[in-house]
Amino acid sequence: MTAHTYKIIELVGSSPNGTDEAIRNAIAKAAQTVKHMDWYEVIESRGHIVNGQIQHYQVTIKVGFRIED
Amino acid sequence: MTAHTYKIIELVGSSPNGTDEAIRNAIAKAAQTVKHMDWYEVIESRGHIVNGQIQHYQVTIKVGFRIED
Amino acid sequence: MTAHTYKIIELVGSSPNGTDEAIRNAIAKAAQTVKHMDWYEVIESRGHIVNGQIQHYQVTIKVGFRIED
Amino acid sequence: MTAHTYKIIELVGSSPNGTDEAIRNAIAKAAQTVKHMDWYEVIESRGHIVNGQIQHYQVTIKVGFRIED
Amino acid sequence: MTAHTYKIIELVGSSPNGTDEAIRNAIAKAAQTVKHMDWYEVIESRGHIVNGQIQHYQVTIKVGFRIED
Amino acid sequence: MTAHTYKIIELVGSSPNGTDEAIRNAIAKAAQTVKHMDWYEVIESRGHIVNGQIQHYQVTIKVGFRIED
Amino acid sequence: MTAHTYKIIELVGSSPNGTDEAIRNAIAKAAQTVKHMDWYEVIESRGHIVNGQIQHYQVTIKVGFRIED
Amino acid sequence: MTAHTYKIIELVGSSPNGTDEAIRNAIAKAAQTVKHMDWYEVIESRGHIVNGQIQHYQVTIKVGFRIED
Amino acid sequence: MTAHTYKIIELVGSSPNGTDEAIRNAIAKAAQTVKHMDWYEVIESRGHIVNGQIQHYQVTIKVGFRIED
Amino acid sequence: MTAHTYKIIELVGSSPNGTDEAIRNAIAKAAQTVKHMDWYEVIESRGHIVNGQIQHYQVTIKVGFRIED
Amino acid sequence: MTAHTYKIIELVGSSPNGTDEAIRNAIAKAAQTVKHMDWYEVIESRGHIVNGQIQHYQVTIKVGFRIED
Amino acid sequence: MTAHTYKIIELVGSSPNGTDEAIRNAIAKAAQTVKHMDWYEVIESRGHIVNGQIQHYQVTIKVGFRIED
Repeated sequence: MTAHTYKIIELVGSSPNGTDEAIRNAIAKAAQTVKHMDWYEVIESRGHIVNGQIQHYQVTIKVGFRIED
Repeated sequence: MTAHTYKIIELVGSSPNGTDEAIRNAIAKAAQTVKHMDWYEVIESRGHIVNGQIQHYQVTIKVGFRIED
Repeated sequence: MTAHTYKIIELVGSSPNGTDEAIRNAIAKAAQTVKHMDWYEVIESRGHIVNGQIQHYQVTIKVGFRIED
Repeated sequence: MTAHTYKIIELVGSSPNGTDEAIRNAIAKAAQTVKHMDWYEVIESRGHIVNGQIQHYQVTIKVGFRIED
Repeated sequence: MTAHTYKIIELVGSSPNGTDEAIRNAIAKAAQTVKHMDWYEVIESRGHIVNGQIQHYQVTIKVGFRIED
Repeated sequence: MTAHTYKIIELVGSSPNGTDEAIRNAIAKAAQTVKHMDWYEVIESRGHIVNGQIQHYQVTIKVGFRIED
Repeated sequence: MTAHTYKIIELVGSSPNGTDEAIRNAIAKAAQTVKHMDWYEVIESRGHIVNGQIQHYQVTIKVGFRIED
Repeated sequence: MTAHTYKIIELVGSSPNGTDEAIRNAIAKAAQTVKHMDWYEVIESRGHIVNGQIQHYQVTIKVGFRIED
Repeated sequence: MTAHTYKIIELVGSSPNGTDEAIRNAIAKAAQTVKHMDWYEVIESRGHIVNGQIQHYQVTIKVGFRIED
Repeated sequence: MTAHTYKIIELVGSSPNGTDEAIRNAIAKAAQTVKHMDWYEVIESRGHIVNGQIQHYQVTIKVGFRIED
Repeated sequence: MTAHTYKIIELVGSSPNGTDEAIRNAIAKAAQTVKHMDWYEVIESRGHIVNGQIQHYQVTIKVGFRIED
Repeated sequence: MTAHTYKIIELVGSSPNGTDEAIRNAIAKAAQTVKHMDWYEVIESRGHIVNGQIQHYQVTIKVGFRIED
């Protein structure tokens, strides 16, 4: 991290397949509109259960991105 | 919560009447510009005291809303 | 609290009307099967939003009850 | 909050009627002896259950007040 | 989550293969006796090491399920 | 801890004599109905004061036990 | 706890002999000036080491006492 | 804080000179686009080390600002 | 810290110049009435923003002082 | 865990492929110099983003190992 | 604590007899190789249960010691 | 942070002059024996008071450094 200013946003990604894919999905979605993303941090890991099975893994992350000068 | 991506924002609502109304005020204000709000979570509950009485209940909430595809 | 042993269970109550009623609903439901409840503690206060309005207040509580000798 | 020094005290208020009234009761009691109270913050929200019903809502708050110059 | 009451239980699942499978194993085991499970939340993620390698991934989760009316 | 599933329950034990005995009392009480207890963790340590002296030490613990296959 | 207002103070007690005695010493000291103490809660448990041995056990507690009407 | 609604954003400021300047830099950057900022709160204080010396102090803050009516 | 009993109080100091001065101001104010102060611990670091600039740094500290025998 | 003494160290492992592999990499690296590792616990899960994609998953773990007698 | 630099290490001590002895055992073990230990702080207090009885009290502590100049 | 493994150590630095200098002193001391330090994070900020004035600012930090391959 250099001497820039960063903004942190909070996202929830989800996936039927696993925790890591839920993180990747949130970042891929954010990448459509946010530039200069630099890091993420997992805040909460949870999921939705239907009929005794996990239907969606849901991961809340904070994402830091550099504010353009 | 289905397999969408959600964004979480943090708001402080206030009310002269009570904690629940402070939450409702924050959500009503956000509803003017944010669509697809799905849940809120109370982060902090506090208030402003004037002359020994609560003048405003102030509640910090996180609000999650679905990002449109 | 006297020299008994207590068990603590965790419940989520909900209400369309407010935070306190959500707590009361959880305790009323538990009272149908649990005796000797002695105290509760709020763990999390959140809610479900539909069309920009709170549809249900949802409060997670821990409830302590005395184990019969 | 201006450039004064504040002291923070911790109180537990109670009420048979609800969470907000428990907060108000603690502040009203403190107002009998403490001047210049400026804000409160909820630390813990719990209650006493008797015969399957809430007998007292009990709320722990921190109260900040300005120290006179 | 609708206007029902939910109970939350805490489980530890384990797996020799990974974190997500440890979660799934805990839920599959619970599904043998618990109906109406609705969500889980990861509380702690740890593991057992033998001879410098992970022998079991161990994940503590809270599981929420609806109490039948 | 092997590849089993564990359940965690929360108990409050008390004793007029000390913190450790309060823990032991909670576990002894649980042992009357719960098998395969494997570990405990202290969550909260508090007590009841009467006439300026501790009347009961009260310790909240989580207890993990293996669910039988 | 009945419908009174309580104040909570924070104390550090110490003892050369053990954790429980450090708690008792703090309460005994407070009892010289504070009436109506009702409960304590351990906030922090630490100690001072001299020459590789514990010289004092030091326990930080919160003590709640009823404010007289 | 009066009866308005506030939004809270999270920023990371940095400075080669010290913690306070890192806070000021984040606020100065935000002031270019955000009006009505009212308070900040430090969330995390860290830094980047190069060749055994601090190259940048990095402070994560939350900033609250009033939403215009 | 020797085998005495200590009391801990919570203060908020403020300064237009910086975080450390806000701490010093709180301690200087307390020193007018409290003897035997031994340590402080920072609990919260925040500030008031006016016109896009920090008007006051505000630091909440706990201060421990020895109770006289 | 038997009646031995354990030391706990904190490590950050990384992997381009996923969270679990980042944990395994940290443990494999530690195994080159540390004997008798017995358990790990995940403290923080984060990652580095480059061009809108996760370049490294980074997991902070605590590892406990038995001190030889 | 004077103007020295201190290092903090984390240890788990155990004892079949009680919490305080588990702390003392960890410190005694560390004293074999670490000089200038100055304080400890309890991080976690747990234990191992066999046949419904505590077999070992296990206490995780942080220990601070002065780095020699 | 690249795909290396990092170790995190915990230090307490002190200074008679201020918080930032206490951090710098801890890092300077560590730099005498630890290579490849990459970041620090403030864990606790406190100080020692003598005669109503801060004698030493004491800051606990975690420092991460790369383990050589």
